[in-house]
Amino acid sequence: MSSDPLVIFTPSGKRGHFAVGTPILTAARQLGVDLDSVCGGRGICSKCQITPGFGEFPKHKVTVRDGALSEWNKVEQRYQDKRGLKEGRRLGCQATVQGDVVIDVPPESQVHKQVVRKRAEARDIVLNPSTRLFYVEVAEPDMHDPSGDLERLQNALRDQWALENVTADLHIFQQMQPILRKGAWKVTVAVNLGDAENPARIMHIWPGYYDGTVYGLAVDLGSTTIAAHLCDLQTGEVVASSGVMNPQIRFGEDLMSRVSYSMMNASGADEMTRAVREGMCALFEQIAEEGGIDRGLIVDAVFVCNPVMHHLFLGIDPFELGQAPFALATSNALRLRAVDLDLNIHPSARVYLLPCIAGHVGADAAAVALSEAPDKSEDLVLVVDVGTNAEILLGNKEKVLACSSPTGPAFEGAQISSGQRAAPGAIERVEIDPATKVARFKVIGSDLWSDEDGFDDAIATTGVTGICGSGIIEMVAEMRMQGIVDAPGLIGTAEQTGSANVFADGRTNSYLVYDGTAAGGPRITVTNRDIREIQMAKAALYSGARLLMDKFGVDKVDRVVLAGAFGAHISTKHAMVLGMIPDAPLDKVTSAGNAAGTGARIALLNTAARGEIEQTVRQIHKIETAIEPRFQEHFVNASAIPNAVEPFPILNSIVTLPNETFNTGGGGEAEGGGRRRRRAR
Amino acid sequence: MSSDPLVIFTPSGKRGHFAVGTPILTAARQLGVDLDSVCGGRGICSKCQITPGFGEFPKHKVTVRDGALSEWNKVEQRYQDKRGLKEGRRLGCQATVQGDVVIDVPPESQVHKQVVRKRAEARDIVLNPSTRLFYVEVAEPDMHDPSGDLERLQNALRDQWALENVTADLHIFQQMQPILRKGAWKVTVAVNLGDAENPARIMHIWPGYYDGTVYGLAVDLGSTTIAAHLCDLQTGEVVASSGVMNPQIRFGEDLMSRVSYSMMNASGADEMTRAVREGMCALFEQIAEEGGIDRGLIVDAVFVCNPVMHHLFLGIDPFELGQAPFALATSNALRLRAVDLDLNIHPSARVYLLPCIAGHVGADAAAVALSEAPDKSEDLVLVVDVGTNAEILLGNKEKVLACSSPTGPAFEGAQISSGQRAAPGAIERVEIDPATKVARFKVIGSDLWSDEDGFDDAIATTGVTGICGSGIIEMVAEMRMQGIVDAPGLIGTAEQTGSANVFADGRTNSYLVYDGTAAGGPRITVTNRDIREIQMAKAALYSGARLLMDKFGVDKVDRVVLAGAFGAHISTKHAMVLGMIPDAPLDKVTSAGNAAGTGARIALLNTAARGEIEQTVRQIHKIETAIEPRFQEHFVNASAIPNAVEPFPILNSIVTLPNETFNTGGGGEAEGGGRRRRRAR
Repeated sequence: MSSDPLVIFTPSGKRGHFAVGTPILTAARQLGVDLDSVCGGRGICSKCQITPGFGEFPKHKVTVRDGALSEWNKVEQRYQDKRGLKEGRRLGCQATVQGDVVIDVPPESQVHKQVVRKRAEARDIVLNPSTRLFYVEVAEPDMHDPSGDLERLQNALRDQWALENVTADLHIFQQMQPILRKGAWKVTVAVNLGDAENPARIMHIWPGYYDGTVYGLAVDLGSTTIAAHLCDLQTGEVVASSGVMNPQIRFGEDLMSRVSYSMMNASGADEMTRAVREGMCALFEQIAEEGGIDRGLIVDAVFVCNPVMHHLFLGIDPFELGQAPFALATSNALRLRAVDLDLNIHPSARVYLLPCIAGHVGADAAAVALSEAPDKSEDLVLVVDVGTNAEILLGNKEKVLACSSPTGPAFEGAQISSGQRAAPGAIERVEIDPATKVARFKVIGSDLWSDEDGFDDAIATTGVTGICGSGIIEMVAEMRMQGIVDAPGLIGTAEQTGSANVFADGRTNSYLVYDGTAAGGPRITVTNRDIREIQMAKAALYSGARLLMDKFGVDKVDRVVLAGAFGAHISTKHAMVLGMIPDAPLDKVTSAGNAAGTGARIALLNTAARGEIEQTVRQIHKIETAIEPRFQEHFVNASAIPNAVEPFPILNSIVTLPNETFNTGGGGEAEGGGRRRRRAR
Repeated sequence: MSSDPLVIFTPSGKRGHFAVGTPILTAARQLGVDLDSVCGGRGICSKCQITPGFGEFPKHKVTVRDGALSEWNKVEQRYQDKRGLKEGRRLGCQATVQGDVVIDVPPESQVHKQVVRKRAEARDIVLNPSTRLFYVEVAEPDMHDPSGDLERLQNALRDQWALENVTADLHIFQQMQPILRKGAWKVTVAVNLGDAENPARIMHIWPGYYDGTVYGLAVDLGSTTIAAHLCDLQTGEVVASSGVMNPQIRFGEDLMSRVSYSMMNASGADEMTRAVREGMCALFEQIAEEGGIDRGLIVDAVFVCNPVMHHLFLGIDPFELGQAPFALATSNALRLRAVDLDLNIHPSARVYLLPCIAGHVGADAAAVALSEAPDKSEDLVLVVDVGTNAEILLGNKEKVLACSSPTGPAFEGAQISSGQRAAPGAIERVEIDPATKVARFKVIGSDLWSDEDGFDDAIATTGVTGICGSGIIEMVAEMRMQGIVDAPGLIGTAEQTGSANVFADGRTNSYLVYDGTAAGGPRITVTNRDIREIQMAKAALYSGARLLMDKFGVDKVDRVVLAGAFGAHISTKHAMVLGMIPDAPLDKVTSAGNAAGTGARIALLNTAARGEIEQTVRQIHKIETAIEPRFQEHFVNASAIPNAVEPFPILNSIVTLPNETFNTGGGGEAEGGGRRRRRAR
């Protein structure tokens, strides 16, 4: 037994004997305790704050007496005066061991701190970012032993931080010399720690101690919208979240029409590449402004997207994705430079794209797999990411299957007569009165129902502008529940339905939701064509899930996770009325929010997760719906709309009730719709 | 002992027993014999040609009978009909072992063939380029087991060529898919095999078998001129050599004036960076045209240059190089991408810059060290690279010292009244008649002396335009030898010198070399200011060499190598009359031509040499002339011009002969010149 004092760290439980006078930071480093430091123990950064415990610690069989640490010193006092230290805190680089002591490392002093996710069932993210800050003191140039400034900086990183073979991009060479001199040879360096393909790399240099942070972006590049989280890479916090429309929409609402555009126009793919990159830059400008940060401090970005977006973003013609065998140019994860993608962030910023699973199952599905981890699930979980395409994962820790299904953009409010994207003024909640068959609704931006007092004032600025994706789901489901739509999907006449809001509209009927024309606003209706769009979308979604269940050899799943920005807003009840997903117990259907975006955020904050998901994706079994006859079969069968949500806890029996059917031609039309539907991935 | 037939390869001497029916290429690969193949033994590329030997081989103790190889087959016949095979040649992939056989691998069938250098004393270059061609057959996409085209191509490279973890740049993703399909999944791939910092990388893809080559550039970026060799990376041959003026000259003739320009103008460094890169692109366009090749096939480029050029080319402000302690931004070798330097070659082309030795001793000196290998020399060698700056190396295999000396551009014909760069019409050879004291000369582009019949016709197109660097050396030396200039450097009067060509020119005298005014041409003279410029240049050169000798602790060297484009044209005799270099036996002074350019070519053709020179440079001792009092001392003492080349085989005794001195004020003026001379590196 050593006669040196015993130092015990919590929460890790690591312990060791250290000579009197050893700084706590030094002890922590020697034991491999996760205690942060940017300045390397020089009393500048205060990242190494610790909380010493005093008194009896029966669990550790130790008594900590007063004087177990050195006295509060002037460096700590200076920091206290300037910034303030929390009660009971000391600086780990200043406080030295004087006797047996128990040291607690608070979460904010840990490098690999846990980033807590909002959902109870989700695993927390362990912070392990690509880029960290290091304060170093660099040797001055010596004419008698000439060497470059960069080489002396590299030596400092090696000697002071054990960082070996750190390289630098050209712009670092270009900027480094005045910064080193301004900082009197003391600088803070942001170092990207490297990965399987790339060595560690100096990203940025600041003179002296830099009391700031660097940022990363987790980007979900969707066909319709591009959304991003801006994250602080030192704390893992989301500093801002923002989204823009994908400017490619002007080349086609759905993916297939964009693939067609590139086939019909020689420079079509190039135009779309330019458009999406410009949209990306606009988003980055916007999010940096919202976060109140300098865009030049964004040093890392992770992208998730479907394969067509993936290729167009990279400048690859998506031609091959439009036809069998749907060959991707590249399916593996990609590690690129932001400048090669014309992105307006830090000039050395690195970009990571998650791997694609197959020609129709993209990096977005991989991100969902990373976030929802079906491969780690004990029970059989169906994960459905609802967007312009649905990515569907089914599995447990034994096996995971994946496919994609061409739902089309109806669930995002597109191709719907009064549809619009989710934005203030859009109808998002609907209830139809069983007696009057009149709809009341809520719009985004207001908590009031449309028939409540003050609604008109609440929407004065936005108006009522259209119906968003979740609104149209509720609308159609409510129409079905109140007998306005029959099981095959036809809107009855005013007479058949008993609703004064139904009106003849050409060869079919439509339903009036809201008439704002008196005040110069829109007249919002649901047409029978809208119903058809929703039917086809939900049938595609359902068929994909059924196909995976066939392949897995099961008739039911243990639980369902609805992902997608849309999945977060969807009413589970209404989704079930529509028959979007296979049978599952009501309480086992949960929403995961934007799981693809979360997966991107995990890959951004924890570089180890990148290798993990690459491994997982290699093990996922891919099912190509386009060549599976059963997919088409399921699709045809799934176009009808059930209506019973209660009293049955098991939903989506696809049996239609003949007495609720206005006419039987609708089924045939739905089948026709299935046949003429293009692959739109 | 195996009963299988014995196969012996020459010149390697490698031998082994192989089953009857084994292709010679297979046997070669198994033994590690250096036998080329691009198509991997498919009978397409014909790179694996071998020459079987028949009869008795007493040295190998083997008798080769007829029928020791399989019969000439139809693949060989097809190749014979189409291209022709040399007498006695077979294709190594077609001919199979049938009995004991001796197989000679001719040089052109070796991958690591020797590239022969013109000079007898120089070591040959072993070809080992960054980029090689590989023909592969790629698996077609499979919907049931989806993977990217790139991943299947990577698998083919791994399985068919044992190339692991080959990556690709973005533009490869963008172009690959149609090429794979055009070649029916058979393609030829140019692969950069990677280095210490970078993984192997696909550079280019051609459909089917590509019967061409790829190229590299060895570039010598000088202050005055940029010169390049365009090399075939499969054969090592120089396809074209070309040069342009460095466009930075408009910002200042010498390096110091360019550093000053960048100090005085906020965007000065940027302007000069743009200028040199544009000049580089112009040169590359020119050299590709001269070589008759597509610039897009240039996949590798090696650059050598002095530190100021190095920094300006990279976009680094050379500010720190203009003042002590002359700190380089980076001194190590650099591996960059051509696009980052705005170069107009292959979009994935890689760039290698040799390491800098010190703030005044650049990558050009490293290249000279690579070419002349003083570190491998048994005897003590002084290597002098004469340019706007002289880089000087002194050493043997025990130790190498290096320094740089600010000779200024006089040796390149600049700052000389009638000076010009080496180009047709420039005077390059001079003789002054001892009796008449009239000069006769030769110009570049003609072999006739100016007093020979037909000279006027020979120069009809070029005229006589000026004096180039080697011409001015000979001119001054001849003037000294014929008593027109005295030891301190003053031109005597017509009376003193007995030359009717001398004329009073302000406060000093000048010498008329050629009067072309009658025919509208120039009047070419040597002024006393020209003499001063040459005196200072040669004194700087001499002093640097002397300083290294002091540091080495020697009074003489075993041999002298004159490098530099200029060094190749210089007359050793005249250089000695001038006293440019320290004492050495006459027959031990050789010219190495453009050794920096050769070093660049070695690093281009043999990637292993890159690691070697990086290692060597780390071991070279750097001497900074600017802080060595003895340098200035040597400089002052060296400004006089000796004149005795014969009968003394040991040259450059700096003793001046008083009876040949017109006046003694000259020495003082030369000293003043030394003092006012700026550091121009």
